[in-house]
Amino acid sequence: MEINLVSDTVTKPSPEMLQYMFRAVVGDDVYKQDPTVIELEARVAAMFGMEAGLFFPSGTMANQTAIKLHTQPGEQLIADKYAHVYNYEGGGVSFNSGVSCCLLDGNRGMITANQVAEAINDPEFYHSPKTSLVCVENTTNKGGGACYDLETLQQIKQVCDSNNLKFHLDGARIWNALVAKRQNPKEYGKLFDTISVCLSKGLGAPIGSVLLADKETIHRALRVRKILGGGMRQVGYLAAAGIYALENNIMRLTEDHRRAKELGLLLSRLPWVESVEPVETNILIFKVISSLNDALLIEKLRQKNIAISSLGKGKLRIVTHLDYREVMHSYVLDTLQRLFLV
Amino acid sequence: MEINLVSDTVTKPSPEMLQYMFRAVVGDDVYKQDPTVIELEARVAAMFGMEAGLFFPSGTMANQTAIKLHTQPGEQLIADKYAHVYNYEGGGVSFNSGVSCCLLDGNRGMITANQVAEAINDPEFYHSPKTSLVCVENTTNKGGGACYDLETLQQIKQVCDSNNLKFHLDGARIWNALVAKRQNPKEYGKLFDTISVCLSKGLGAPIGSVLLADKETIHRALRVRKILGGGMRQVGYLAAAGIYALENNIMRLTEDHRRAKELGLLLSRLPWVESVEPVETNILIFKVISSLNDALLIEKLRQKNIAISSLGKGKLRIVTHLDYREVMHSYVLDTLQRLFLV
Amino acid sequence: MEINLVSDTVTKPSPEMLQYMFRAVVGDDVYKQDPTVIELEARVAAMFGMEAGLFFPSGTMANQTAIKLHTQPGEQLIADKYAHVYNYEGGGVSFNSGVSCCLLDGNRGMITANQVAEAINDPEFYHSPKTSLVCVENTTNKGGGACYDLETLQQIKQVCDSNNLKFHLDGARIWNALVAKRQNPKEYGKLFDTISVCLSKGLGAPIGSVLLADKETIHRALRVRKILGGGMRQVGYLAAAGIYALENNIMRLTEDHRRAKELGLLLSRLPWVESVEPVETNILIFKVISSLNDALLIEKLRQKNIAISSLGKGKLRIVTHLDYREVMHSYVLDTLQRLFLV
Amino acid sequence: MEINLVSDTVTKPSPEMLQYMFRAVVGDDVYKQDPTVIELEARVAAMFGMEAGLFFPSGTMANQTAIKLHTQPGEQLIADKYAHVYNYEGGGVSFNSGVSCCLLDGNRGMITANQVAEAINDPEFYHSPKTSLVCVENTTNKGGGACYDLETLQQIKQVCDSNNLKFHLDGARIWNALVAKRQNPKEYGKLFDTISVCLSKGLGAPIGSVLLADKETIHRALRVRKILGGGMRQVGYLAAAGIYALENNIMRLTEDHRRAKELGLLLSRLPWVESVEPVETNILIFKVISSLNDALLIEKLRQKNIAISSLGKGKLRIVTHLDYREVMHSYVLDTLQRLFLV
Repeated sequence: MEINLVSDTVTKPSPEMLQYMFRAVVGDDVYKQDPTVIELEARVAAMFGMEAGLFFPSGTMANQTAIKLHTQPGEQLIADKYAHVYNYEGGGVSFNSGVSCCLLDGNRGMITANQVAEAINDPEFYHSPKTSLVCVENTTNKGGGACYDLETLQQIKQVCDSNNLKFHLDGARIWNALVAKRQNPKEYGKLFDTISVCLSKGLGAPIGSVLLADKETIHRALRVRKILGGGMRQVGYLAAAGIYALENNIMRLTEDHRRAKELGLLLSRLPWVESVEPVETNILIFKVISSLNDALLIEKLRQKNIAISSLGKGKLRIVTHLDYREVMHSYVLDTLQRLFLV
Repeated sequence: MEINLVSDTVTKPSPEMLQYMFRAVVGDDVYKQDPTVIELEARVAAMFGMEAGLFFPSGTMANQTAIKLHTQPGEQLIADKYAHVYNYEGGGVSFNSGVSCCLLDGNRGMITANQVAEAINDPEFYHSPKTSLVCVENTTNKGGGACYDLETLQQIKQVCDSNNLKFHLDGARIWNALVAKRQNPKEYGKLFDTISVCLSKGLGAPIGSVLLADKETIHRALRVRKILGGGMRQVGYLAAAGIYALENNIMRLTEDHRRAKELGLLLSRLPWVESVEPVETNILIFKVISSLNDALLIEKLRQKNIAISSLGKGKLRIVTHLDYREVMHSYVLDTLQRLFLV
Repeated sequence: MEINLVSDTVTKPSPEMLQYMFRAVVGDDVYKQDPTVIELEARVAAMFGMEAGLFFPSGTMANQTAIKLHTQPGEQLIADKYAHVYNYEGGGVSFNSGVSCCLLDGNRGMITANQVAEAINDPEFYHSPKTSLVCVENTTNKGGGACYDLETLQQIKQVCDSNNLKFHLDGARIWNALVAKRQNPKEYGKLFDTISVCLSKGLGAPIGSVLLADKETIHRALRVRKILGGGMRQVGYLAAAGIYALENNIMRLTEDHRRAKELGLLLSRLPWVESVEPVETNILIFKVISSLNDALLIEKLRQKNIAISSLGKGKLRIVTHLDYREVMHSYVLDTLQRLFLV
Repeated sequence: MEINLVSDTVTKPSPEMLQYMFRAVVGDDVYKQDPTVIELEARVAAMFGMEAGLFFPSGTMANQTAIKLHTQPGEQLIADKYAHVYNYEGGGVSFNSGVSCCLLDGNRGMITANQVAEAINDPEFYHSPKTSLVCVENTTNKGGGACYDLETLQQIKQVCDSNNLKFHLDGARIWNALVAKRQNPKEYGKLFDTISVCLSKGLGAPIGSVLLADKETIHRALRVRKILGGGMRQVGYLAAAGIYALENNIMRLTEDHRRAKELGLLLSRLPWVESVEPVETNILIFKVISSLNDALLIEKLRQKNIAISSLGKGKLRIVTHLDYREVMHSYVLDTLQRLFLV
């Protein structure tokens, strides 16, 4: 059986989670009559100290909805060059909202208040798009699971306030950041106009994201979700998985982080590895030496039943997760150690 | 307990369907690795004799994706004035595709080939939008569950072919039409460029629609679904409900139809009912006499634990479905009979 | 030489207008440094008692900008089924603004307050697009030059105010209405959020429209005009033609109206004419008897050097204008009279 | 009187050009009946060896139309980070076309084939936008009037062909490039799918751009121009200015270039100038020493009746043009020389 380290999206519900799902009391959520969905939305909102939440079939739709809510067509958002909203949402920022991206050259996917301040277009100079939104991602996906200090976010928030910009958090992996940095989610609720969080990925639910905001914004989000086709009927089965995940799978993320760090440490000592990026959470990016290449390494690992993915040009990515257990971990460590020995 | 006749979207999975869902083998459908989703898509495609299918979280997203695939911004589609895509998809035709609607004054939501032919804009007259798509709905929702003869659809198809137009079927309730008209779904596969079908509504699955087309179109649909945020992870649990529904819940739609007809027959004899529209499937539209009004009737029925909905101006709608069982039916017939007796 | 009655857009500047253009003091209007443009914008705004104006290269762009300013993607505007913004602006309402049209079955292109009130979607029912704008056209183009009573417009304005809708006037031929109805343009300024007026058509300038609104709206309009590509450099030459037209060509519209009425009177008496629509301004729509057809009549007139246009199905349109002078008028009257005599 | 070196868009027609304009034979260009417009379009097309041309009210609209013609919503174009289409067209790429920009870190606004090749997204990886277009600007505006070698453009064209990408030239100042590099415009016609050229700027016409392409593309462009509101009536007056400019004002661009170089040479020797970018055409970018700042220099020059503009952070821009004559040039050289002497 294959050990899949390509992404933390590949996890499957445990028998306990499944049982919890199929006992859910459901209703028609399009009419807002599904009690389990309502419970999930309220719980996540409460965790972050925000007024309201809305369930979405994907993190992409939650992000795209947030961007739509904060912008007008023709306007511009600011984000890191690695941002998921720019790179991996199918061009949705422009498709769904008619908005362009001003991309900053951040550090491992993380940007600073100064960078943001310099990137804001003069609002009176109508030849350039009006800047109206800043998006940050935490942890950063393409940036290798890096996480922000709260202070940096607070500084960006100040720049947003001074320039009348909205502030959105793509929190697809916010749980990893909270655990790794021992941060209080309520601190996030104070900073952002909208937060999207994922229940799949590290938390292990099969599907689902929640968008958080104040009540008026969530009321408007309902209309955008409808237009994009994200209104679902008896979706409480999926929401139940989310509730189970919140109750059971947050603290155990520390294990994913430990394993990622152990893999990083090992790799940094191997002769065929050129460099390993700092490992803060469950994502590990490393580079092989130039005499090797990513395709070759991937193939070699596949023969050992280990799947990892390439970022191109000798860079590779490993992601640990709920279904990557200790026994597999020992095997992977061992396999990597011996990989190029005769 | 309330008897809900507001819509057939309110049904909940039976214990058998739930068990089937629970046992599904799943994978990450974003990477197209969920075998249950793949099985569902292939099954529905085969039923209609089309090459490929794609699972969606809602009928709205399946329709919106089809419209996007067939049009360019600025172009126009032709549909009946009651069309769901125009009336109940949040303005998505213009939002998602930049497309306008030319609405025809059809009969109970159904249009004719002649009407379509007359509505096509001269493709050389560039002041008017270019007509590029015809959408029909079968059965018609706002039209009261009316269903098309195949001949009418074949005639519209000819007009489409002669004018280089694409042809989309909003088959949210196509199963009701197939059963009521004893039609072969493969006849539909021959006529349409895309067909969307719903697994919720009459079939009783909690969530899910499938878009059908040729392989190349479905390949492009994957990208549009991604942009709209409809890519989901381990969605096989929902797909399993769809498979169960296809196997178990199609033929029983005849019971929904019988009950709707019996309700129609009764209503047509009641002194407080002005008129009843023809009942072909599971939707029943009737009008109360002018001395009564819809709000009053709804309230009166609510006191008897029966929920129905208003279409405005004295028109009301009843929808029968899987969870509306014989014992409830007897009670509803009886209650309607006595409603305004002392 | 051909007598062109196809449209009032075909007029060419008189030598006096040309000389006035030629002498204009110009600047770079993209930097708002063209004094002639500024003068024109201020003059038209003052005529209508509105705060500010903005010059546009076409009436289409002025209308499209107004619609963009008043709506969000996904929303809906209300207009007559004959509306220029729906029929003849290339599908721009959906392309530029992502907005759909709810079309009313008005009288000769004119709608009533009651019709508007009934067409407004429930703002809380998020399945349907949110209604946000009402557009009227005065005079109506496809409606045959019909003009509104002020009272009707005031009643529609009340419905707009009660329902939080914006109100736009497509005044491509507002000058004809003002003259025909002896109305004060300042009454219009009180009713509408935006008004577009054309300087070509009846007024005879070669190019140009002005959008009127309050200062804040015009400030936003500048940005939309830029995005659509309507910012022009030394455009004072065109603006000068507009100023000349305002000073010299408004009152003479009565002659165009008289000639259109005389043509209508004659046609109504001819045996090959089935019916003539009421003639209020410079547009005349009539229908030929079924044994004749529009293509044939157009060809027959072309042989006599008279060009008119067809609206399809036996309906034809004649438009009088500045370059249609008395001597031509006598010739056309005479030609029509004899057309089917041997 | 002020000497305006802010942009070459501020030029005004000479008496000879004006006379040529007002003798133009015009018609209604919306019906394609303006002979002067038709002549201009054909002439420019012939110069570049392309099939057809279309007149536009602005370079922005010509570029935006080209981008629309080559892309679908959600797709991506590649351009330099200084590109006018990204920076100075109001966000139109996303507004009008729903397209995102992948910006390259070029040299003075110019990109290479290798950079393009690396920036193309994998067309099968549907999470990322599909790359469909490359835009280059020649000369580069924000890049300081730099011009491409033909070889570089040919190499980019090869990458486009290998990857099924369209290739657009923003030729707002192509005339400057042709003159400076002694290139044949027909070489450009072979490389690009669309070319936009401006008749204002260096050529000195008051308004107007022409988009060049094959016939089928120009046919489609007509529809896009209509939707954006760029269809104008008797626009031959403006087209005539363009014809005059083509006949009289191309070769004299060498004088603008000489003056810009002389200004650059002087500045490079002045103690308060930190650096001067290479001067190839009529745009000159320089940086003042850190003890000075742009606002101060601009003010100081304004007192001497010389207007120049800032690019921010100590960088300033001077643009020479048709209305900047030798006597002014001597004065400006002299003034700069003495500016900070007591």
